[in-house]
Amino acid sequence: MLPLEGLKVVELGHYIAGPFATRLLADMGAEVIKVEPPEGDPIRGWGSTHNGHPVWFSIHGRNKMSVTLDLKSPEGRARVIALCARADALVENFRPGYLERIGLGPLVLQAANPRLVIARVSGYGQDGPYRDKPAFGAIGEAMGGLRHLTANPGQAEFPPPRCGVSISDDLAGMYAAMAVVSACWGRDRKGEAGRGRIVDLDLVSSVFSLMEGMLPEYGLTGAIRQPAGAAIPTAAPTNTYPCGDGKWLCVAGNSDLIFGRLMRAIGRPELAADPRMVNNTSRCLHVGELDGAIADWTRTLSAKDAQAVLEAAEVPCSRLFDMRDCVEDPHFQAREMVIPVQDPLLGPVLHPAPPFRFDGVTPPEMVRWTAPAIGAHNEHVFGTLLGDAA
Amino acid sequence: MLPLEGLKVVELGHYIAGPFATRLLADMGAEVIKVEPPEGDPIRGWGSTHNGHPVWFSIHGRNKMSVTLDLKSPEGRARVIALCARADALVENFRPGYLERIGLGPLVLQAANPRLVIARVSGYGQDGPYRDKPAFGAIGEAMGGLRHLTANPGQAEFPPPRCGVSISDDLAGMYAAMAVVSACWGRDRKGEAGRGRIVDLDLVSSVFSLMEGMLPEYGLTGAIRQPAGAAIPTAAPTNTYPCGDGKWLCVAGNSDLIFGRLMRAIGRPELAADPRMVNNTSRCLHVGELDGAIADWTRTLSAKDAQAVLEAAEVPCSRLFDMRDCVEDPHFQAREMVIPVQDPLLGPVLHPAPPFRFDGVTPPEMVRWTAPAIGAHNEHVFGTLLGDAA
Repeated sequence: MLPLEGLKVVELGHYIAGPFATRLLADMGAEVIKVEPPEGDPIRGWGSTHNGHPVWFSIHGRNKMSVTLDLKSPEGRARVIALCARADALVENFRPGYLERIGLGPLVLQAANPRLVIARVSGYGQDGPYRDKPAFGAIGEAMGGLRHLTANPGQAEFPPPRCGVSISDDLAGMYAAMAVVSACWGRDRKGEAGRGRIVDLDLVSSVFSLMEGMLPEYGLTGAIRQPAGAAIPTAAPTNTYPCGDGKWLCVAGNSDLIFGRLMRAIGRPELAADPRMVNNTSRCLHVGELDGAIADWTRTLSAKDAQAVLEAAEVPCSRLFDMRDCVEDPHFQAREMVIPVQDPLLGPVLHPAPPFRFDGVTPPEMVRWTAPAIGAHNEHVFGTLLGDAA
Repeated sequence: MLPLEGLKVVELGHYIAGPFATRLLADMGAEVIKVEPPEGDPIRGWGSTHNGHPVWFSIHGRNKMSVTLDLKSPEGRARVIALCARADALVENFRPGYLERIGLGPLVLQAANPRLVIARVSGYGQDGPYRDKPAFGAIGEAMGGLRHLTANPGQAEFPPPRCGVSISDDLAGMYAAMAVVSACWGRDRKGEAGRGRIVDLDLVSSVFSLMEGMLPEYGLTGAIRQPAGAAIPTAAPTNTYPCGDGKWLCVAGNSDLIFGRLMRAIGRPELAADPRMVNNTSRCLHVGELDGAIADWTRTLSAKDAQAVLEAAEVPCSRLFDMRDCVEDPHFQAREMVIPVQDPLLGPVLHPAPPFRFDGVTPPEMVRWTAPAIGAHNEHVFGTLLGDAA
C-alpha cells in the first residue's frame, strides 16, 4: 500500500511546477484529478512526440486522472467547487489573482470545504512588487542566485549555462508537494480543528533556499560568493577533468585518505607524500598544481578507462552520464531505476523510477499508469465520483 | 501554529542531505533532535567562521535541538533507542549497513517503536552494486545525468561547471522530507494499522528524477539529449546575453506576444514583423540570428540599464543576481525573504526565509532559533524529555 492512498488532490496546474508537485503526490499514491482546458495543458505540446502524443508528458502526467473543464463557464466553476468539496488539497499555479478573478479564490473554495489545503505556486509569490510579472523558470533561477554561480570564472565567451533542466520549477513543485502533505498531516492530527491551510510557494524563494551560507556570509562580511566552475573552493582536489576521448571525468579526491590513493593511481606518489599536500586546507592553496597533475593523467586515457583505474583505487569518480549511460549502467538496472512501461498512447516506453522507495512496494508498482489522454476521466470523475451525468 | 507542530523527528545525520531534510521539517514546526558525535557534525567545519562559529550552520541547524552521543557505546545506543521510542520518524544518512553494524538497524528501532518512520538517505541507495561506495554530491550529479547537461556546447576549454551548490544532496534531502511526512500521514490516517514505513532515498535517483522526457525519448528513438548552454533548444529566443559592463542578462522572449515587444524594445521592429519569425517553431530555426540581434543590443548597455528597458516593455528578464542583488532587491525586502536574526553564537546574521509560507505565519516567525552549539540540548532532552539524569 502506498503512503498517500486515500489523499484526494485536485490540480489546477499547467506547465511544470504545479503538475510536478501533484505527480510526486500521485507517485506516492494520492488520487490526483488534473483539471485541463478542453485543448489540454500546454505542456502537452512541449518536446518530442511519438504516434502524435507528447513523450515527456507520459511521465509528467502519470498516475493522474485527467478531466476537462472551461473554468470561465458556470458549469466549469461549479464542478471545480464540487471537486474541491470532496478533496484534501488543491494545487494551482495560475498567476496570482487569477483564480480570485474567475470566482474560484480560496474564500469560495474553502466555503465549500473548510478542510481544503490550497497550495499556490507562482513565479514570485502571492504578494510583493513583482507578483504580477509572468513567471519563467529561467528568471527564477537568475533572481534566486543560482545562475550567477553556474559558471566558469574567467570565461567570457559563453554565457553561464542553465543547469540543463527547469530546476526552479522542479524545486518549487517539490516544496509544494512537501507543504501539501505537511498541511494535511497538521490538519488531521489528533485534536486539531481541521482547517485547511493556504500555502504560498514561488520559484525565486525555492532557488534562494539552496544558497547555503552565502546570505549570512554576505551579511557578516560583505563577501559575495563567486562562481567556481566545476571546483569547490573549500575542497581540493575535486573537479571535472578532460579525458583523451573528449569526455569529462568528475573526481572527488579531497579527503586525506582518498587523496593519497588518487595520487598513487595517477603515478604521482611524491605528491601524496608532499608536506604541502598534507591536509585539505593546505591542498586548497596548491589546487592548481593538483588539478594540473590530474588532468595531465586523464588526458592520456578515455573517460571510461580513467574511471576504471580510479575506481580500482577506490577514488570516487564518475563520467558525466548521458541517458545511454544511465540505461546501460548495472546499478540503474539492479535498482529498477529504468522502468519499461506499456503506454496506451505511445506504446512501450521507459519511465524513471520515483525517487523515493517505500518498503513493500517496488518501483514498477509505483508507476500505476502513464499519462492519460485529455479528458480521459471525464465520465468516471463527473459521472461516478461527483455523481452527476457528465 | 505551524503545520508540523507535534511531529517528533530524530536526526542521525551529518553533512548535507540528511540534515537538510530535517531542517525543512523543523522550519515547518517539527521537533527535531539532532544527534551528533561529541565533536559535532563535520559540516560545522565547512565554510567560513565568525567568532569561531560556522556561518552556514546557523541556517543548516536552525530550529533543531542538538544532543551529543557516542553511538558505539551502550549508553549512546540505549539513548538513541529511547529517542526513537518517543518519535514519529528518524532521518539518517550513514553509509548503507552502518546502523545495522552498530546495532541500531530498523529491526532494533522498530522493535522499540513499530510506528517509527525511518528515512535512509545515501549516495546510491540501500541496495544495488554501488551501495557501498562513498557518497559524494558531485558523483550523484554526474551519474544522475545533470552534469552532462550543465555545459555550453562546443566549449572544450573549461569543464561543465557545477550548478554552484550541492544540488544532489539538496534534492535528496527535499525528497526525504516529503517522504517522511507522507509516511506519517499514511500511518496516521483513519483506520490505518500504524506501522512505520522504511524509505530509501539516494542522490543519483533524486537527480535522475529531474531528467524530464529524456529517458523515454532515448528509449523510443535512441536520441541522447545534449547540453544547450543557456538556451532552451525548443524555445526561441530565450538565452543569457552579454552586457556592456561584463555582466549577463537572462531573457525569456519566446512567447509570440513577448517576442514582438522584445524586438521593438531593442530597435528591431522589422524582425517582429518578419514572417520567418511568426511562431516559436519557426523562430527556433533562426535562433542564431535572433540571439545575435539581442546580444548586439545588450552589449551597448549595462545589465541594469538593459533590464530596465526590457522591463518597461514587459519582457521577462533578469540580471544574474548575486547575494548583494538579493539583499538589495525591493521584492526580497517586501516578501521578508532576508530575515535579520540574532544568533547567540554569531551575533546578528541574515537568514533566508523558508521556501514555503503558511497563512497566519510570517517568515520571521518560522525562524524560531538559530543553530545550537554542539550538545546544547543534552540536559533538556536527556533529563526532561527522556526523564533520566543526563
